[in-house]
Amino acid sequence: MRTALVIGTGLVGTSAALALSARGVDVHLTDHDDSAVRTAAALGAGTAGVPQAPVDLVIVAVPPAHVAPALADALAQRLGRAYLDVASVKGGPRRDLEALGCDLSAYIGTHPMAGRERSGPLAATADLFEGRPWVLTPTPDTDTEVLNLALELVALCRAVPVVMDADAHDRAVALVSHTPQLVSSMVAARLEHADDSAVRLCGQGILDVTRIAGSGPAMWMDILAANPGPVADVLTDIAADLAGAVAALRALESGDEDKRRGGAAGIEDILRRGNTGRAKVPGKHGAAPKPYEIVAVLIGDQPGELARVFADAGAAGVNIEDVRIEHSTGQQAGLVQLMVEPRSAPTLAAALRERGWALRK
Amino acid sequence: MRTALVIGTGLVGTSAALALSARGVDVHLTDHDDSAVRTAAALGAGTAGVPQAPVDLVIVAVPPAHVAPALADALAQRLGRAYLDVASVKGGPRRDLEALGCDLSAYIGTHPMAGRERSGPLAATADLFEGRPWVLTPTPDTDTEVLNLALELVALCRAVPVVMDADAHDRAVALVSHTPQLVSSMVAARLEHADDSAVRLCGQGILDVTRIAGSGPAMWMDILAANPGPVADVLTDIAADLAGAVAALRALESGDEDKRRGGAAGIEDILRRGNTGRAKVPGKHGAAPKPYEIVAVLIGDQPGELARVFADAGAAGVNIEDVRIEHSTGQQAGLVQLMVEPRSAPTLAAALRERGWALRK
Repeated sequence: MRTALVIGTGLVGTSAALALSARGVDVHLTDHDDSAVRTAAALGAGTAGVPQAPVDLVIVAVPPAHVAPALADALAQRLGRAYLDVASVKGGPRRDLEALGCDLSAYIGTHPMAGRERSGPLAATADLFEGRPWVLTPTPDTDTEVLNLALELVALCRAVPVVMDADAHDRAVALVSHTPQLVSSMVAARLEHADDSAVRLCGQGILDVTRIAGSGPAMWMDILAANPGPVADVLTDIAADLAGAVAALRALESGDEDKRRGGAAGIEDILRRGNTGRAKVPGKHGAAPKPYEIVAVLIGDQPGELARVFADAGAAGVNIEDVRIEHSTGQQAGLVQLMVEPRSAPTLAAALRERGWALRK
Repeated sequence: MRTALVIGTGLVGTSAALALSARGVDVHLTDHDDSAVRTAAALGAGTAGVPQAPVDLVIVAVPPAHVAPALADALAQRLGRAYLDVASVKGGPRRDLEALGCDLSAYIGTHPMAGRERSGPLAATADLFEGRPWVLTPTPDTDTEVLNLALELVALCRAVPVVMDADAHDRAVALVSHTPQLVSSMVAARLEHADDSAVRLCGQGILDVTRIAGSGPAMWMDILAANPGPVADVLTDIAADLAGAVAALRALESGDEDKRRGGAAGIEDILRRGNTGRAKVPGKHGAAPKPYEIVAVLIGDQPGELARVFADAGAAGVNIEDVRIEHSTGQQAGLVQLMVEPRSAPTLAAALRERGWALRK
């Protein structure tokens, strides 16, 4: 790949342009917002404006609802040899393009699984996609050359290619991303009118469950509007479990011992299926979660406490695999859980104790 | 308080006994399981067996369903001057005691908001309650002396007392703890039969939402069985939002522009209420979440990378307020987000760059 055109210089488009430019590709940039193009060009992402000759790869990086018209327009203008989009939904744009009568042999739908809290070209970075899955959805009609150009883009962005069917992709992201977002919002929404005394009892569990409920609504509305069917299907399955849980809990309220036994079985079933499902969520490096040992250290809130704990752990030569910080309510103290390989735990614990840290068993 | 009796030497009972013993209280221990008592006594939690004379405070630390009979028995035997339990549900045990005809002036229901993944006396630690909320549910019938003994226990355990009505407590924990647990299980349960390719697309969002779905079912069944009504009420409210979301998404699937607008408004409403509710969840120290600045560092997977990043941050004299580690899929690399006060971010970023770390903007 020697030349590329990025249509849409937001976070994803500008990040891809930065990665390509850094690796010697001649990148052109357009956007309906002139200032976004100027910003991206000023960051070194490429040259503003449509190229004179067709480029090797046209990257359409606009919101889901605008993908099909932008692609149809680029195809009609013959701006490139190959075309792809990077929208978070893949079935709808393809069907829209088919409805517009476009020849799709030069097109491949893709979705890099990367993002951040901020958006726009100023949030862009050449390493946004490093190590992240980048889904490619070729069909039997896709030219091999087009698939290979897409794979080259993924490689230049140092992402990990994953080939999927477009509709399977949409069902997958509904399951692992779009539905969890909405459910997290619904759990958080219950706190909207909660008493302060209730809110004081919040612990790490609800903090984790509702973290993504803090996300900005605008981007999520675009995403959900582009993938309504698969998300509604997953929510409907959850609604069935939810109705089952309510019935089980009401049975547990009854005086009838048989009903209570049935209710308990219903709740246990949900908790156990939750265990099974959770065990499938990839942890570090996409592998099954390793059974790390936790070394828990009490720290104060003085500047540098956390840094000192890590410095002391580093001095002990132990690789910390993951870390969780649990803050206390109403007190200037916290608990840091250092997760390490089981064989390293005694070494780390001894080293930290020697340096004066209070460990919790 | 000079003497205490702990009935039930599991995690919570033994931890309280350890804290009291460490502060000079003469603690006696009983449990229906002889080996649990022997273990607790061997850990220094107190003396096995019922005391000769009534103690100052009887602490009943048995599972929710056994609280009322254990308390009624202790009251009948006149084992102490004051009595409390530490079960995670407060309305039911009180009503059971009333039904048993007990005089409740010497009793106060309490709930320390502390726990850990492990249970039993071997997991106990004298600092389990440090800085955690400990709910007290006095009634007009509660003797002031009894309330003061409970407050003394909370102080000796270095917890933070919170006074609440028993039923308000049960509704609050249903809202902030029991319901999030069940909903997390339901989201995770959707992955039970998911394809591997779908599971590969899991990101940090679903990891957070489903973390507590990995909890063991036994303890949660006890808790949910003791608080079925309030949990069913919150789930019913969530079910209404869920049905609304499904209807809104189905409207977004339709070709009718008015319906689509209505659907978009319905989804936006849930996302916005989620924002409002999330903003109420206390962050560090029970205060509103501070607007930390994130300094994101790419690390490799060699031993000590994380420790080195923290050591370098520590050398820069910057206090790290929180940390989040995002692991890549399929690659030996990760992204560490260091959260710091906004004014410290440039110092930290400069120091880390100087030490050769790759930062993501």
